[in-house]
Amino acid sequence: MNRRNIALRLSYDGTCYHGWQVQKKYVTVCGTMEAALSRLCGHTVKLTGCGRTDAGVHAERYCANFFSNTGIPADRLPYAVNSLLPEDICVKAATEAEEDFNAILSCEKKEYTYRIYNSRIRDPFWRDRAYFYPSPLKLDVMKRAAEMFVGTHDFAAVRSVGTETKTTVRTVFWYEVEEGERTINLRVCADGFLYNMARAMAGTLIYASEGKLSPEDIPGLLEKGDRRLAGPTAPPQGLYLSRVWYGGKVGEMMSL
Amino acid sequence: MNRRNIALRLSYDGTCYHGWQVQKKYVTVCGTMEAALSRLCGHTVKLTGCGRTDAGVHAERYCANFFSNTGIPADRLPYAVNSLLPEDICVKAATEAEEDFNAILSCEKKEYTYRIYNSRIRDPFWRDRAYFYPSPLKLDVMKRAAEMFVGTHDFAAVRSVGTETKTTVRTVFWYEVEEGERTINLRVCADGFLYNMARAMAGTLIYASEGKLSPEDIPGLLEKGDRRLAGPTAPPQGLYLSRVWYGGKVGEMMSL
Repeated sequence: MNRRNIALRLSYDGTCYHGWQVQKKYVTVCGTMEAALSRLCGHTVKLTGCGRTDAGVHAERYCANFFSNTGIPADRLPYAVNSLLPEDICVKAATEAEEDFNAILSCEKKEYTYRIYNSRIRDPFWRDRAYFYPSPLKLDVMKRAAEMFVGTHDFAAVRSVGTETKTTVRTVFWYEVEEGERTINLRVCADGFLYNMARAMAGTLIYASEGKLSPEDIPGLLEKGDRRLAGPTAPPQGLYLSRVWYGGKVGEMMSL
Repeated sequence: MNRRNIALRLSYDGTCYHGWQVQKKYVTVCGTMEAALSRLCGHTVKLTGCGRTDAGVHAERYCANFFSNTGIPADRLPYAVNSLLPEDICVKAATEAEEDFNAILSCEKKEYTYRIYNSRIRDPFWRDRAYFYPSPLKLDVMKRAAEMFVGTHDFAAVRSVGTETKTTVRTVFWYEVEEGERTINLRVCADGFLYNMARAMAGTLIYASEGKLSPEDIPGLLEKGDRRLAGPTAPPQGLYLSRVWYGGKVGEMMSL
């Protein structure tokens, strides 16, 4: 069998993991996935993920690819891998990808959803799955603040330093503030996200609701590029990678 | 301060608990609640719950009451108790109850919801919160089967032996099979439930979907009272106590 490039769609509850990226001393999603895939394929598997997620951050739709000469058909692969995985990580689908497909480099855009459990009293079912914020949030102010991030800007003011990047310019395609059934959901889609950018923007929307900055301050804040002017980085348990876009067959699999 | 009878509305994720009822060797919801309330009130608190839930069973709305001479106002009590509780148990509301109110004896009816994650591939976010059932379920058959349980019957055929009870006759007011956003929900309301009755009925609905019995067999099966004729007891993680009804002030608090 020739070397295949296999792309996976997966979901995970990030509560028990030190993020996606392999780290020597910690249990990570990538490390757990690689162990299961290596066992299944009978050789060491190296996974490429569509991005790093921090400790405690979740993924509803995550894409990763790996090379293997395994003979397992793509449509059987999810069942085979899942039987070797803990229940907080699931492979939902698999497909053959083009030789040059790369989960991070081929990614066209991503959407993160930040969930806030906004009620006076916390809820046991949302404890690791949303940010508990007890004061009433001003959705109209948050919507105005979110609009200010849409477009092509330098996002240096809403990232944490730590990961190298050629440029801090990104394009935000949309940033919606929606009332879900139990949570307030902040959905933001961009061609790429800087380190902690989704959480820093969520923190800035909350800051705006608290009156600590005005939505109209955001363009100037982005222009100055000073992290101290924006809101704090919102906690990880509210963040979900919710969609990832690609061309071709992988794009089809990811949108199912 | 006189002796007060205080009723609480609480929610819990039962995953980490050996059910509601205090047991010497295990961590239970009642035991955890009593420890927190005793610390708060400065005396040993004995809680009366509205019913036993098994290990792994959840409660969206549970009612419990206790006697205390604590001076903490009822509307402050949830915040005070929650600060002493783990995050998988939350007190949502508290109210003064009549002297003779008793969470189990005063209960008029209860509703349990059984959630089934019915998809070919499991989901990390439902792992401890629904029963994962990979084959397509026949909702029309399950609805017909559910209808057969409605009314006043002897439910001995759908209980586990273990708890003593004067009579095994109960009245089921409704039993609805609904397609939720991500799960299939079986909502059953009765004036009381025998031990494991909600789970045995859920198992019987699934049995009907599998063609292992016909909905029309259910009346005869109830009449015979033979546990072996009904379906198996469905696993605990799908079960939620979803509503509890009372008269008066406690009823008002429970319906908020």
